[in-house]
Amino acid sequence: MGLVIVEAEEEDEIREGRLAADGGVGSILVPPTNFSMVDDGIFRSGLPDASNFRFLETLNLRSIIYLCPEPYPQENVEFLAANNIKLFQFGINGKTEPPVPMPEDTIIEALKILMDVRNHPILIHCKRGKHRTGCLVGCFRKLQNWCLSSVKDEYRHYAGLKSRTSDLCFLESFNVVSLRQCLYSIIYQYNGYSSKRRLLYREESVQKPQIKSM
Amino acid sequence: MGLVIVEAEEEDEIREGRLAADGGVGSILVPPTNFSMVDDGIFRSGLPDASNFRFLETLNLRSIIYLCPEPYPQENVEFLAANNIKLFQFGINGKTEPPVPMPEDTIIEALKILMDVRNHPILIHCKRGKHRTGCLVGCFRKLQNWCLSSVKDEYRHYAGLKSRTSDLCFLESFNVVSLRQCLYSIIYQYNGYSSKRRLLYREESVQKPQIKSM
Repeated sequence: MGLVIVEAEEEDEIREGRLAADGGVGSILVPPTNFSMVDDGIFRSGLPDASNFRFLETLNLRSIIYLCPEPYPQENVEFLAANNIKLFQFGINGKTEPPVPMPEDTIIEALKILMDVRNHPILIHCKRGKHRTGCLVGCFRKLQNWCLSSVKDEYRHYAGLKSRTSDLCFLESFNVVSLRQCLYSIIYQYNGYSSKRRLLYREESVQKPQIKSM
Repeated sequence: MGLVIVEAEEEDEIREGRLAADGGVGSILVPPTNFSMVDDGIFRSGLPDASNFRFLETLNLRSIIYLCPEPYPQENVEFLAANNIKLFQFGINGKTEPPVPMPEDTIIEALKILMDVRNHPILIHCKRGKHRTGCLVGCFRKLQNWCLSSVKDEYRHYAGLKSRTSDLCFLESFNVVSLRQCLYSIIYQYNGYSSKRRLLYREESVQKPQIKSM
């Protein structure tokens, strides 16, 4: 078994402290509140602030799905511009009084962006990463064929004490059949060792000789 | 932008229901309790049972880190054999009466297995995916330079009401400097778009022309 060295990247990583290989001199990274990895190239969290920007840089994000109607904070807009990150905003009302059902059409549009690997790595976030983000991720899990109880458990896991029955009902009733058929009209394929459908650029695919191409 | 089709894999995926592109005929997948993705090729959960095996198959695991002293369940042993998954067992006592501190030496040995990409995709699990798994993942986060408060938040996130002060103290006092220096003696490099150090086979590296090699 041969090993490979990438000196330049190593130096970059040490300097940027992504995984300090020195005595721990690398800078400390602060993930956004309620941060987690959802799947290959898909992350979730609450609203990031400036203290999280260095951490977000290590994710090499291509895009962000922002699920709030409020304008994106200026410092976040500047961070996205500086890092060439595309913002997809879907304004979903976070208020619960009066109760507002999760808008299915908006979630479906967000799912289409989420499923397109050309937007990956992608971060999904609302304000606290509990309800709007939890519903979008829950619908994504239904598309992955997760059983409903696991979908709900994951929602509750991140919503904690703020778990909402209306969101759980939305997840239960969300119909993925039509969306699956819509997504099936897009061409997918494996990516690496994971077994999720991926939409790839030709130039990405040619780096994977194990993948057949047209 | 060109797209690529892999018909064989598509049919496999539909048949196996990994992401049902049909009307939803694909089989339902049941993740293990407390399942989550930790990082590229790294997963965590509670003890899987037979109902989770089809889900685990979609992860294409190469290995499992099992943190309990009890013998691995026979049906799990058979699942690993059938799927060519290597088992790394580190017997850490899960009892709290009398209080038993998390064994640092054992955690370090488990971290060395966890950090070696030749073992990825890898699943870390104990019995409930709360304490032993939470401590190992927490030490991994310290290696990634996560701030201590985020490391503790993630531990609490999965331990829930079962969160243990002794585990939080262990995470706070765990010294990653010597382990970093040990790991730095291994050669790492980027893997794809993520910015984590990875140890690769030569045959893996040659599929990534963007990576310089010796």
